[in-house]
Amino acid sequence: MGSDSDLTIMKPAADILQFFGVEYELTVVSAHRTPERMFDYAKTAKDRGLKVIIAGAGGAAHLPGMVASLTSLPVLGVPVKSTNSIDGWDSVLSILQMPNGVPVGTVALNASKNAGILAAKILSIANEGLAEKIKAYMEDLKKEVHEKADHLRIGGYPNSFDK
Amino acid sequence: MGSDSDLTIMKPAADILQFFGVEYELTVVSAHRTPERMFDYAKTAKDRGLKVIIAGAGGAAHLPGMVASLTSLPVLGVPVKSTNSIDGWDSVLSILQMPNGVPVGTVALNASKNAGILAAKILSIANEGLAEKIKAYMEDLKKEVHEKADHLRIGGYPNSFDK
Amino acid sequence: MGSDSDLTIMKPAADILQFFGVEYELTVVSAHRTPERMFDYAKTAKDRGLKVIIAGAGGAAHLPGMVASLTSLPVLGVPVKSTNSIDGWDSVLSILQMPNGVPVGTVALNASKNAGILAAKILSIANEGLAEKIKAYMEDLKKEVHEKADHLRIGGYPNSFDK
Amino acid sequence: MGSDSDLTIMKPAADILQFFGVEYELTVVSAHRTPERMFDYAKTAKDRGLKVIIAGAGGAAHLPGMVASLTSLPVLGVPVKSTNSIDGWDSVLSILQMPNGVPVGTVALNASKNAGILAAKILSIANEGLAEKIKAYMEDLKKEVHEKADHLRIGGYPNSFDK
Amino acid sequence: MGSDSDLTIMKPAADILQFFGVEYELTVVSAHRTPERMFDYAKTAKDRGLKVIIAGAGGAAHLPGMVASLTSLPVLGVPVKSTNSIDGWDSVLSILQMPNGVPVGTVALNASKNAGILAAKILSIANEGLAEKIKAYMEDLKKEVHEKADHLRIGGYPNSFDK
Amino acid sequence: MGSDSDLTIMKPAADILQFFGVEYELTVVSAHRTPERMFDYAKTAKDRGLKVIIAGAGGAAHLPGMVASLTSLPVLGVPVKSTNSIDGWDSVLSILQMPNGVPVGTVALNASKNAGILAAKILSIANEGLAEKIKAYMEDLKKEVHEKADHLRIGGYPNSFDK
Amino acid sequence: MGSDSDLTIMKPAADILQFFGVEYELTVVSAHRTPERMFDYAKTAKDRGLKVIIAGAGGAAHLPGMVASLTSLPVLGVPVKSTNSIDGWDSVLSILQMPNGVPVGTVALNASKNAGILAAKILSIANEGLAEKIKAYMEDLKKEVHEKADHLRIGGYPNSFDK
Amino acid sequence: MGSDSDLTIMKPAADILQFFGVEYELTVVSAHRTPERMFDYAKTAKDRGLKVIIAGAGGAAHLPGMVASLTSLPVLGVPVKSTNSIDGWDSVLSILQMPNGVPVGTVALNASKNAGILAAKILSIANEGLAEKIKAYMEDLKKEVHEKADHLRIGGYPNSFDK
Repeated sequence: MGSDSDLTIMKPAADILQFFGVEYELTVVSAHRTPERMFDYAKTAKDRGLKVIIAGAGGAAHLPGMVASLTSLPVLGVPVKSTNSIDGWDSVLSILQMPNGVPVGTVALNASKNAGILAAKILSIANEGLAEKIKAYMEDLKKEVHEKADHLRIGGYPNSFDK
Repeated sequence: MGSDSDLTIMKPAADILQFFGVEYELTVVSAHRTPERMFDYAKTAKDRGLKVIIAGAGGAAHLPGMVASLTSLPVLGVPVKSTNSIDGWDSVLSILQMPNGVPVGTVALNASKNAGILAAKILSIANEGLAEKIKAYMEDLKKEVHEKADHLRIGGYPNSFDK
Repeated sequence: MGSDSDLTIMKPAADILQFFGVEYELTVVSAHRTPERMFDYAKTAKDRGLKVIIAGAGGAAHLPGMVASLTSLPVLGVPVKSTNSIDGWDSVLSILQMPNGVPVGTVALNASKNAGILAAKILSIANEGLAEKIKAYMEDLKKEVHEKADHLRIGGYPNSFDK
Repeated sequence: MGSDSDLTIMKPAADILQFFGVEYELTVVSAHRTPERMFDYAKTAKDRGLKVIIAGAGGAAHLPGMVASLTSLPVLGVPVKSTNSIDGWDSVLSILQMPNGVPVGTVALNASKNAGILAAKILSIANEGLAEKIKAYMEDLKKEVHEKADHLRIGGYPNSFDK
Repeated sequence: MGSDSDLTIMKPAADILQFFGVEYELTVVSAHRTPERMFDYAKTAKDRGLKVIIAGAGGAAHLPGMVASLTSLPVLGVPVKSTNSIDGWDSVLSILQMPNGVPVGTVALNASKNAGILAAKILSIANEGLAEKIKAYMEDLKKEVHEKADHLRIGGYPNSFDK
Repeated sequence: MGSDSDLTIMKPAADILQFFGVEYELTVVSAHRTPERMFDYAKTAKDRGLKVIIAGAGGAAHLPGMVASLTSLPVLGVPVKSTNSIDGWDSVLSILQMPNGVPVGTVALNASKNAGILAAKILSIANEGLAEKIKAYMEDLKKEVHEKADHLRIGGYPNSFDK
Repeated sequence: MGSDSDLTIMKPAADILQFFGVEYELTVVSAHRTPERMFDYAKTAKDRGLKVIIAGAGGAAHLPGMVASLTSLPVLGVPVKSTNSIDGWDSVLSILQMPNGVPVGTVALNASKNAGILAAKILSIANEGLAEKIKAYMEDLKKEVHEKADHLRIGGYPNSFDK
Repeated sequence: MGSDSDLTIMKPAADILQFFGVEYELTVVSAHRTPERMFDYAKTAKDRGLKVIIAGAGGAAHLPGMVASLTSLPVLGVPVKSTNSIDGWDSVLSILQMPNGVPVGTVALNASKNAGILAAKILSIANEGLAEKIKAYMEDLKKEVHEKADHLRIGGYPNSFDK
């Protein structure tokens, strides 16, 4: 992440990876305040064994795109809505609109959890156990909705869907 | 892709995968006109051996997100700027802003080529040969810029960077 | 509705239908977490006797459009402004901008009450009693304004409209 | 429609209604240039036998909302992207964002065809023959996609979905 | 104003007119809930002696434009940022973007005070006493800034502007 | 107007004033290139007999607001969509969003004709002959719509409004 | 700054200049309420020894651009998000989108601190001591990130970057 | 500039510097395709004698901000509206919205000429001859407007400003 002030927003990525049993590291790399650190981080990432990089940043968010320009690893970007953001449009557009040749897979505003899940989905291509965990997770999401629908009995329509 | 009218926009994804020697299929699956086909496509994708799905659509673009809800494979989304689009915002937002649990890795507006490259980067995690090809591709992008800079000698600044 | 967290926003649709004496059911169907449930819901809707479907969702809101693709019943969409929404634009555009062939009648941001009224107006085409109730409701809106105007006597303009 | 210059945009609504065998009238009613005509039109609509009103307008598009305030009939709005429109946002927002009590079912920018289909879906609630036609129409949309997918054989993926 | 809930926003228009000694009336006229009242209001305005009409409304704000279509008096519009507004864009665009032939002079979001001042400026064309009051008011604005600048002595720049 | 390149956009204001028999002058005053000229223009305007000022400008359009700060005359602003404009938003917002105390009555993007009509409406307050001309003009707009509706006989609805 | 209500937003510019040991003055100059003062301020600025002008304003923010039209000194603009701003877009666009010939160097929304740093960078061109201070400041930013990264040890990845 | 395809947009910066007699170099440095080159360029800039850097880029435009993070020289940014840009918002926001500590002075969309003028203004702080040239240039802009106003005699207002 580009700043430790983004920790609250970026933590769910770590949590969901933990949940899936995926090893990860979480650190601060600022494209603008520590450009050399960013270079080193991105350039050594593959050799240090990383497989996917999740980069989150706000405002004129250059971290995801710059990291993507420095590694052959896939990079996922999390637009963070920072203070003085123009409604999040700045981070969304400066992460999403990468030029041809240097892609970033962008997730929704502040959606670090989804970046974690997408990273897990990517890793599951070569890891059937992880794929099973993801399927189970998706089943759990499903169950939660069904349970909520069961508890929510409003309307009393005679031919209701959830009777 | 959601419509055969998106073929011009989506073809570069196929071309770059071809260039990297990655097997792919390219077909039309419409979330809104063929919802059952979309279900079947997404549900059988993993068993048919697919590893990454690239889904491109315009307007209220539901294809990428719906496919993502039906498979544990990673899904990349390409927002297509269709006729009567509101400047592309509609497809960008309806692909990007997925709820927690069901991520789509979104690339830039009309940037199917980048979706192809990101798919290749994802596949290269478990394929060192492909990783080398991607590195070489990135080196080629670099060389092109250097060559252009060599040809572009404007200003005659005495202590120029490219002398 | 796409999530039980949308209940506060969607409840007014139920309330106004209740007020008009229109039978309804209110449940949770998530396009992304329960795609099969959504399929079943939409496909059985007509046979279960439903006549109009109101679907509300936030963010990349695919529920209204997907339901519309699976039934010949008219579908009304309520864009919900969810947490981390980009000012509501995401849900508005992903519900409104449906491709030709699969319409959704979209109401204002968070305006589930209006979706309920529009559903009632639709049902009143073949139900004169309901049409009368709607007319009475519209008259009541009118009266409220007249009463407020009566109480609001600011300015003391000699030739005032409400004297 | 609010102006005869919108005819090209609004004609597809008439065409699809014709296709479905639904009687309709198509005329010009301007909220701003002919407010009295608009009043008369909306107030007599139900008695003249109309069941659904489709109103299309551009810019500060007041026609759909004003008509909705004058009748208990359901009103569908078509935002038209007129010359000097601010990218269509003006007509979209001035049709969509109606206050509680007076709903307009809004379709996509310039999507009069969808307004026609939605009107047909509304009328089909009490007209099973029309419902069948709509189902058949939706099936035709489906077939078209399947045929296009059949013709589009790109990629030669060995385990292709459409083999 | 379109709703008594806009009173807090619209009151400053009345206050500044009072300050300038301009007679006014302030009432509620809803384009959507009381269309007939709006018609009567606008049609009788000139004969009742009104010279300028200020109309404020939020969301799909049709009041200013509709009033302008019904009178030869100049109409000023105040876009009100209402609950569930899409950041005020809806009221701004549905008041501002009037078609040729039916102008509304729009002021800033929520800026009813400015509408009052503009009305006074308009009336001052034929009222030199009022023109003098407006000039005095503008001088007072000037003095306030000069006084604030006098009190604000930050920086201690040796050759300061306000020494 | 702020630049002679805006002449095409601003000319309709002159034409409609000519049509109404209102004397006017049309000249170029640039806030940014000729600030002193702008000062002189605005400061002498009232003494030269001007009654309303219409100022049109594009991009960061400061002319209308600056002129309004220098005169007690009412100022109307025309946002011009210039080359490299960001869809017209820049001129709209920099003319519309004036601070309290210094109003500009803004018309639609490029709508100089409406600025001319609004100026005429303002002048008609003290000029009954002009008020009659404006009413006649509004009647003509009405007739045009009626004539168009007469010629447009599509649908053949048996109980048509315009039979 | 255009208003003393912007003091909280603009103060950081003063503070960072103080930190760098750069002399400055901070005062209120309103383009709209005190146009003559603005003229005098801008016209005398160079002779009073000023080298860079930072102008911050909100809404239809004309101060930076008008000052830039009146001096050969470089002008930096700070868009302030004021009350009733349309999400800051108004001040951003009315400062940024200056026509050719009269540039303003715009910084991020509310980012007066960055305007101060940019002013210092500009002054450091001819002041090596200041250049050194800026370099040291940039090094401090770097160190802060490194320290935060040191304290943030989340994930326990075996081959972590910061071990 | 970030790409040689931006040459048409960026050339006016070079031309105006040439006009002012300011030495410059113009080259291609891509943040995403040649990150190392960008590092070298920015890090050697000051020692090579550069005093101001103008960086232009489109889409997710990271070049200006990244260069600013690597040098104590002032950096001016030119947002370029590239193909598939979302109306220029992407480049504007990803250049403008820099975090505190690393400013970029942003000019209008595609306004490289203004970046050149601003650079000249910056250099003129320590170069009175250049300051005189800039004043003369600003006088010429003024003269052009006056000449145009002289030629544009529309309206024949008896008491015209330019008589």
